[in-house]
Amino acid sequence: MSSVEPDNEPEIALDGEFPAFLESASPRLQQRISDRIDQVQLESLQSALRHATSGGKRFRPLLCSWFGQGLGAAVEVVEAVSCLTEWLHSAFLIQDDIQDGDQWRRDRPTLWKSHGIETALNAADWLLAEVYGEVSRVEISDQQRSRLLDAVQDVHRRTVLGQQFDLIGRGDPTFDLDRYQQAVQAKTGRYLALGLVASAIVAALEQESVDSLWDVGDQLGPAFQIQDDLLDLSRSKGRGGEVGNDIREGKPSILYAHALEVGELSDGDRDQLIQVMNKSRSETTTQDVDWVITLFQQCGSVEFAREQASTRAQEGIRLFGDTPGVTRELCDQFASIARFAAERNK
Amino acid sequence: MSSVEPDNEPEIALDGEFPAFLESASPRLQQRISDRIDQVQLESLQSALRHATSGGKRFRPLLCSWFGQGLGAAVEVVEAVSCLTEWLHSAFLIQDDIQDGDQWRRDRPTLWKSHGIETALNAADWLLAEVYGEVSRVEISDQQRSRLLDAVQDVHRRTVLGQQFDLIGRGDPTFDLDRYQQAVQAKTGRYLALGLVASAIVAALEQESVDSLWDVGDQLGPAFQIQDDLLDLSRSKGRGGEVGNDIREGKPSILYAHALEVGELSDGDRDQLIQVMNKSRSETTTQDVDWVITLFQQCGSVEFAREQASTRAQEGIRLFGDTPGVTRELCDQFASIARFAAERNK
Repeated sequence: MSSVEPDNEPEIALDGEFPAFLESASPRLQQRISDRIDQVQLESLQSALRHATSGGKRFRPLLCSWFGQGLGAAVEVVEAVSCLTEWLHSAFLIQDDIQDGDQWRRDRPTLWKSHGIETALNAADWLLAEVYGEVSRVEISDQQRSRLLDAVQDVHRRTVLGQQFDLIGRGDPTFDLDRYQQAVQAKTGRYLALGLVASAIVAALEQESVDSLWDVGDQLGPAFQIQDDLLDLSRSKGRGGEVGNDIREGKPSILYAHALEVGELSDGDRDQLIQVMNKSRSETTTQDVDWVITLFQQCGSVEFAREQASTRAQEGIRLFGDTPGVTRELCDQFASIARFAAERNK
Repeated sequence: MSSVEPDNEPEIALDGEFPAFLESASPRLQQRISDRIDQVQLESLQSALRHATSGGKRFRPLLCSWFGQGLGAAVEVVEAVSCLTEWLHSAFLIQDDIQDGDQWRRDRPTLWKSHGIETALNAADWLLAEVYGEVSRVEISDQQRSRLLDAVQDVHRRTVLGQQFDLIGRGDPTFDLDRYQQAVQAKTGRYLALGLVASAIVAALEQESVDSLWDVGDQLGPAFQIQDDLLDLSRSKGRGGEVGNDIREGKPSILYAHALEVGELSDGDRDQLIQVMNKSRSETTTQDVDWVITLFQQCGSVEFAREQASTRAQEGIRLFGDTPGVTRELCDQFASIARFAAERNK
């Protein structure tokens, strides 16, 4: 066991690139995901599942695979828990797109748009069943399975709560940074850490390590999400060329929370911001979006979000280094993963 | 251990009433469901969950409680697995109503109608997380937990497949009794048996008993579903006074399968039946519904469905009696449960 002190932190280039070493598990993982979907005999459902699970970065399962292999767990077992994180993520994306009325994801039509809402809901539900199917089938001891199940169902429930926090915060004039923190911690914190925790459990690390990895997620998840929110201001995040999708949805982002609470807005600007965030997607104009983006820049919300993403990534790296059972090499690699999460450009 | 031979079958009145002995667990179960929902701190989600879990017969959890207590399992443990069946059922009803565009359930607006589709989806997802939360928390051995998880995730996946079967069969002119059998077995067979199986597992019955109880479900589930389909022809099933809701949805019921395959329809009647089943809900008139109901009666589909429900219930009773570990008293009671399932009038 070793840990990395903050002052020993390795120097890693901050180029926002996807860490190349994560890719090594990708072909096998891809094959496994594909093989599993091939087994679904209903053609309409199989087609939907293929659509839903293709085109992404696979950041979560690759993170899980990298960590599990680094800890020396059996490849077969690591692959099963890695897939689990992808099934869960894909299920939530399907539901998220239905809830938000999003028509584009990964530069293709969203699943409800291409396959209809009925089949999309069945696909999401199949994926959730498959999450627990992996927990049920993976070759680990019954005691490890109990620990894994506990982690998975806890993340599942918290993510749902996060979705609901997100929903009730939309265009809310009283939204603030405290509520943002509640929502993002529920929605993305444990969610991103699940792959790390799952690998820790199948590698038989102690509960102390698991607790520490949850803490890592509480920093890294929000860092990842904040960077996602920032990217939405300048790039289209696969939404068919549209910038500012979150603004069109009235999403309670860190930018919105900061602008309202700390942005020292004039009454007129505050009223206009709330008004735009409350407009339906179809009513929100490109001028509205541009105006809000300029406001977020002028009142310091963009700068604040950047700092938050960076600070949280640094804190995540520190906590990861303090986790019992984690090697120096894993820490070095994790630092570049965390920086990718907080500084990536897509 | 004892088993009941078919010729020893007890005489039980066929009054279609809910078996009174099932009700004994009801108040505690109600309290437990209510207490759990009280713990959800987001008011909008809590309200949705309360709406989604109230007003039903609670047939599934009461069946589970009755069997678990009859087998002598600990009350606390039996209550946990009973709740699990209610969470699962409530989750599926929410999704089913969204998929079908149903506006009424249990004579109240459906959840998506009263709380919006976004919150309804979060409620369904919370309930699914809670299903596995019960599996995770219930005080049983890790080995029992693995068995329980395997059963739950298997039912979860099969039910999703059943939903998709149902979806692709709508108004399909090639739908037949074989495909009906596939769909109903996936969708309702194991689903109804889950409570029996869960109680068998927590009462430490052998796998042979579990397998036998799944077989019971393969008979009892379809019997229950067929009776549901029959009730829809004459009663409103809580849909705000509307009869023939399944016809309005184009649902691939046993009646539709029988009429198409065995009903010896004239070309004109066949075309009209398919046409009505393919109309959207809003386009289907009361005359359409009445015409289809009359057709189902005239071509023997109603009679066939009645016989099927009855035959399957009898077969379910026989299989239950052959299940190792089941007492004579439980068998006697199960017979009235099965008859309720197949002959109830609401």
